Amino acid sequence: MKNYIELINKNLDKFLEIKYPPEIFEAMKYTVMLPGKRLRPVFCLESCRLAGGDITNAIPTACAIEMLHAQSLIHDDLPCMDNDDFRRGKPSNHKVFGEANAVLAGDALISFAPQIIIENTKNVSNEAILKVLHEYFIAAGCFGIIAGQVADIKAEKFNYKTFDNPENELNFIHKNKTAALFKLALKSGAILGNAGDKFLCDILDFADSYGMAFQIYDDIIDEISTFNSLGKTTGKDKEEGKLTFVTLYGLNDAKCKLNCQIKRARDIIGKYNSEIFNSAIDKLEEGIKH
Amino acid sequence: MKNYIELINKNLDKFLEIKYPPEIFEAMKYTVMLPGKRLRPVFCLESCRLAGGDITNAIPTACAIEMLHAQSLIHDDLPCMDNDDFRRGKPSNHKVFGEANAVLAGDALISFAPQIIIENTKNVSNEAILKVLHEYFIAAGCFGIIAGQVADIKAEKFNYKTFDNPENELNFIHKNKTAALFKLALKSGAILGNAGDKFLCDILDFADSYGMAFQIYDDIIDEISTFNSLGKTTGKDKEEGKLTFVTLYGLNDAKCKLNCQIKRARDIIGKYNSEIFNSAIDKLEEGIKH
Repeated sequence: MKNYIELINKNLDKFLEIKYPPEIFEAMKYTVMLPGKRLRPVFCLESCRLAGGDITNAIPTACAIEMLHAQSLIHDDLPCMDNDDFRRGKPSNHKVFGEANAVLAGDALISFAPQIIIENTKNVSNEAILKVLHEYFIAAGCFGIIAGQVADIKAEKFNYKTFDNPENELNFIHKNKTAALFKLALKSGAILGNAGDKFLCDILDFADSYGMAFQIYDDIIDEISTFNSLGKTTGKDKEEGKLTFVTLYGLNDAKCKLNCQIKRARDIIGKYNSEIFNSAIDKLEEGIKH
Repeated sequence: MKNYIELINKNLDKFLEIKYPPEIFEAMKYTVMLPGKRLRPVFCLESCRLAGGDITNAIPTACAIEMLHAQSLIHDDLPCMDNDDFRRGKPSNHKVFGEANAVLAGDALISFAPQIIIENTKNVSNEAILKVLHEYFIAAGCFGIIAGQVADIKAEKFNYKTFDNPENELNFIHKNKTAALFKLALKSGAILGNAGDKFLCDILDFADSYGMAFQIYDDIIDEISTFNSLGKTTGKDKEEGKLTFVTLYGLNDAKCKLNCQIKRARDIIGKYNSEIFNSAIDKLEEGIKH
């Protein structure tokens, strides 16, 4: 895990070299380089390795996925969205660079990330690169994180309690807002590792259950953590009437649902003996014990 | 020209089918479908045709470029950017759908556009599609329209009159903010038409001069037009201390510079006998006569 993170950070730093006009590259780099677990790019490399591929071929895609993730954080934090002043314990992008540059830095990352994939992916067929790019756009846009974010805003604005089926809406939000990026990471790693059908099928199942587990965990953590332990404002979900696993089912049932997804994730991925995937699952389980 | 515009509008309407959640697709479609000259996608198709290609192969890319253009308009109009309430005579995106959805609709268009290219481009090699996508990302991001927009904001914020070389900055802004999209349209059309080196070279020269002419024209029009004739707020450039050809050189010199670019554009493209390119150049020349 540590080696993967170092590899990713080294390459992110290299890809995000400051060019003209520096304001935009600095704003892009600021949020991408905030210390983080790099879970999505690590998953991409590990999926490539387990599929039998050379992780070097997946590095540009792994970094691109981290850039896309940073983009979603920059725009989520904007005053017109979640209006968060902090991210990973530091002032959020628009607090440092101003709102206009934060909007533009996010925009720039959406297209810089696939540019990095095209310019730096070696020893992989054009067909595989196009497949990866296609997955990237699906996850990045109106069939992925944007769809999830829009549904999330709607649930908040119109009071989800009046919805006919808030459960369906919650699943839609989390499938798109969170699981979509894990799916992108794991599937693109598999494609770049030239995976067979069996592995591809397993890794997609794992993406689905891990992605849902991760979001339920995040909802629980927002409820039980403090600012200091998390580095961002907490307890906002309930206050703002957000539709989450905790607000819809209560804390205990949310924990049960998390454990259920964790069990499913373990069942699927267990046979591959991946220390990285096992330890990522363990962390979710341990995190809610305290 | 009219046939091309109909073809583009029909395909834009088809590609932008409303799916779930409808809010995002409606917001994306609203600005894309505002009545416009469709100049960039028309240029893409015409470049493909003149290169000897079948324009059908360029339709998804032409539509993608119009979507990218709409994206830049949506984000440019935001309160934290140019704060414009009108676009093409209609309320701007954030006035209709709210700021959060306008940010997200722009984000979604950036990745939906290349998704359309990948899913709908037929009879073209993977290599050519990757080349077109690469041009798209360069134009869309921090080496294209975003770079131009950031430099534009900086010139306004820090009073360009204090710059060592405002002329260089102005050229950088317009090369990136405006010419980049014309270059993308013309170059990708040529690639999809399987152009030879000579045509590619000419079309890039034409893109450069036409793109600059178009922006100088736009600067002049902001100075001499009224809201009713243009469908958006005018006269803002001077008021807000923007760096434009008119504020830097004065109206008369700006007109001279426009005529110079127009002559260059005619010289390059004349030999291809394109009614579409000739008439686009004519329009710039006639537009400033009144």
